Amino acid sequence: MSGGIGHTSWIAVDWGTSNLRVWGMSGDGTVLAEHRSDKGMARLTRETFEPALLDLIGDALPEGGQKVPVMICGMAGARQGWAEAPYLEAPCSPPGPENATRVATRDPRIAVYILPGIKQLHPADVMRGEETQIAGFLSGQPDFDGVLCLPGTHTKWVRISAGEVVSFQTCMTGELFDLVATQSVVAQVLQGAGWDDTAFREAVDDALSKPQMLAARLFNLRARGLLEGQDPATGRARLSGYLIGSELSATRPYWLGANVAVLGAESLSRHYCAALSAQGVTALAFSGEDLVLTGLRAAMEKMSKEFT
Amino acid sequence: MSGGIGHTSWIAVDWGTSNLRVWGMSGDGTVLAEHRSDKGMARLTRETFEPALLDLIGDALPEGGQKVPVMICGMAGARQGWAEAPYLEAPCSPPGPENATRVATRDPRIAVYILPGIKQLHPADVMRGEETQIAGFLSGQPDFDGVLCLPGTHTKWVRISAGEVVSFQTCMTGELFDLVATQSVVAQVLQGAGWDDTAFREAVDDALSKPQMLAARLFNLRARGLLEGQDPATGRARLSGYLIGSELSATRPYWLGANVAVLGAESLSRHYCAALSAQGVTALAFSGEDLVLTGLRAAMEKMSKEFT
Repeated sequence: MSGGIGHTSWIAVDWGTSNLRVWGMSGDGTVLAEHRSDKGMARLTRETFEPALLDLIGDALPEGGQKVPVMICGMAGARQGWAEAPYLEAPCSPPGPENATRVATRDPRIAVYILPGIKQLHPADVMRGEETQIAGFLSGQPDFDGVLCLPGTHTKWVRISAGEVVSFQTCMTGELFDLVATQSVVAQVLQGAGWDDTAFREAVDDALSKPQMLAARLFNLRARGLLEGQDPATGRARLSGYLIGSELSATRPYWLGANVAVLGAESLSRHYCAALSAQGVTALAFSGEDLVLTGLRAAMEKMSKEFT
Repeated sequence: MSGGIGHTSWIAVDWGTSNLRVWGMSGDGTVLAEHRSDKGMARLTRETFEPALLDLIGDALPEGGQKVPVMICGMAGARQGWAEAPYLEAPCSPPGPENATRVATRDPRIAVYILPGIKQLHPADVMRGEETQIAGFLSGQPDFDGVLCLPGTHTKWVRISAGEVVSFQTCMTGELFDLVATQSVVAQVLQGAGWDDTAFREAVDDALSKPQMLAARLFNLRARGLLEGQDPATGRARLSGYLIGSELSATRPYWLGANVAVLGAESLSRHYCAALSAQGVTALAFSGEDLVLTGLRAAMEKMSKEFT
C-alpha cells in the first residue's frame, strides 16, 4: 500500500536506526497509506528529520485547518536523533502521550510528538522502540504477567507485571550474527541459502551447556567449513544456535518457569520458540511489526481522549 | 630498514590475510632488508602473488647464477592463496622444509617454498602462520613442555610436548574485538585512546565467573556509555576484558596448572599475562614478530643442511 491522499487524521511513525516506517491513519485507526524508507536515524542530522518525513507524507497533509498529529517512536528520540525524548526509568508503564516530547517544526501542518524509550540503571540498559511494541502488546493483553522476548538486532527480555516494565536485559545477539555472518573470517563458509533444524538445535544445546565456548565455536565454524565440507546452511544454523543458546544461558533467570511471549518477525521468533521449547518452555509468538502500530495507535487514542 | 641491495642469499616471507612481510637475508642469517605491504592474501588472486613479491624484493635479486630460495609461511598456502600447501595433522612437529610446497614461478631467479599449516580433526581447527612462530619458539626452547598462547585476530592455545603440537584451540577473540569496537552499535561509545587496568581486571573476572553473559555485557557497554558517562578508555578495557575473560573460560583445560608462554605483540601479550596472573598462572611473554623470522630461518637452515 502506498500513496493514499485523503482523510489522513494522524500519522504513525516507527523511526529506527536503519529504517523509517510511516503510516497515514484515518480517524478510526484504519491504515490509509504505508511508506518505508532507509532514512533511519543513522543517516540523518537533526535538521534532516523533518524533510525525510515530509518526503513520505507531505502530499497527504491537508493545507490549512487543524495540525495533523504525528506520533513517533524509536531512535528519532535519541540524543543524536531529531530531538531527545528523555528515557522513562524502569519499573514503569510503557510511555504514553503524556510522556512524549513535542518537537517544533517548520511545516505548520504537523504537530510532532516523540515517545520516549525506557532506561534501567542497575544493570545499565536502554530500549527505544520496543517499549511501543510492548504497549501495543499490552493493549491487547492488559492482564499479561510474565516475560516478553523481543528478538532482533538487540534482543530484549522484559519482565512484565501489573502492566509495568519491571526489568529488562538486552543481548547483542542479532548484531553479532550479522557481523560474524557477513564481515568475519567465518562469512566465507556461510554463503548461500537454506537452514538446518537439527544443527540449530544441537548448537543451542551446546551453547546452553558450554556458553563459555562461544568465541571458540565461532572459529570452529570456519574450520568445519574448510575441513569437513560443512554445508553453508548448516553453518548458518549453527551460528544462530550458538548465539541464541548463549543468549538463553544469559537470560535463564528471565525465562525459567516463566510465562513467555515472543514478539518479533515470524522467521526469527520461530527459532526462539524452538529453542525455548527444547528447554521445556512453551512460548507464544506475536508479530512484532503489527505491535508497533498498535502501540502508536494506543498512544494516539489516549491523546485524543485526554488532550482534546 | 628498507632497500639493501646486495648479497641476498635467501628471502623470508610471512604472508598473512591482511599483511605481507618480507626479509632479505644473508647466508649467515642476518637481515639485510625488511619490507612490509598491505598486499595480504585477501587482496590477491593466484596470479598476483608473484608480482606482489617481486615488487618488494625484485631489485635485490642477482641476475643469473643460482636461484634464491624464498621461504614463505602463512595464508599464501591457503586454498585461495598462491598455491595450496596441504595441512599437516596434529599431533605433529611444526612443519619444516621437508613439508613445504614448491611453487613454480615465471621469474627464473627465485625458488619458492610455502610451509604448510596444521589442522586438527576433533574438534576441527586450523592454523596457518602460527606453526612457524611455534617452530621459532621451539628452536630456542627445544625442551619446552606446556602450553603456548598466541594472541591475535584468531588466538591460538597450543599444547606442546616432546617438540610436537599435541592439540590446539582457536578463539575468535581479536576479530570479535575489532568488529564490536569499530562496526557495532557499541563503537560510538568507545572512540578515543587510553586504557583502564582496573576495569579490564574486573571485566576478566566477571567473564570468567559468568561467561554466558557475553552478548549481554557487550550491549551493557553501550548502555553504560549512554547512562553513566562511561569513559571510552574504560569501555574499551571492559570490552577487551569480557572477551579475554570468556576466552580464558573456554580454554581453562589448556592453561589451568600448566606451564604457559605467551607469544605475541607486547601490547596484547601484556593483557593476557595480567589476566592469567589474576588466575594464579605466571606466563612468560615472547615477541611473536621475532619468532616468525626465527622459524623461517630454522626452516632455511634445515633445508641448507639436508637438501644441498
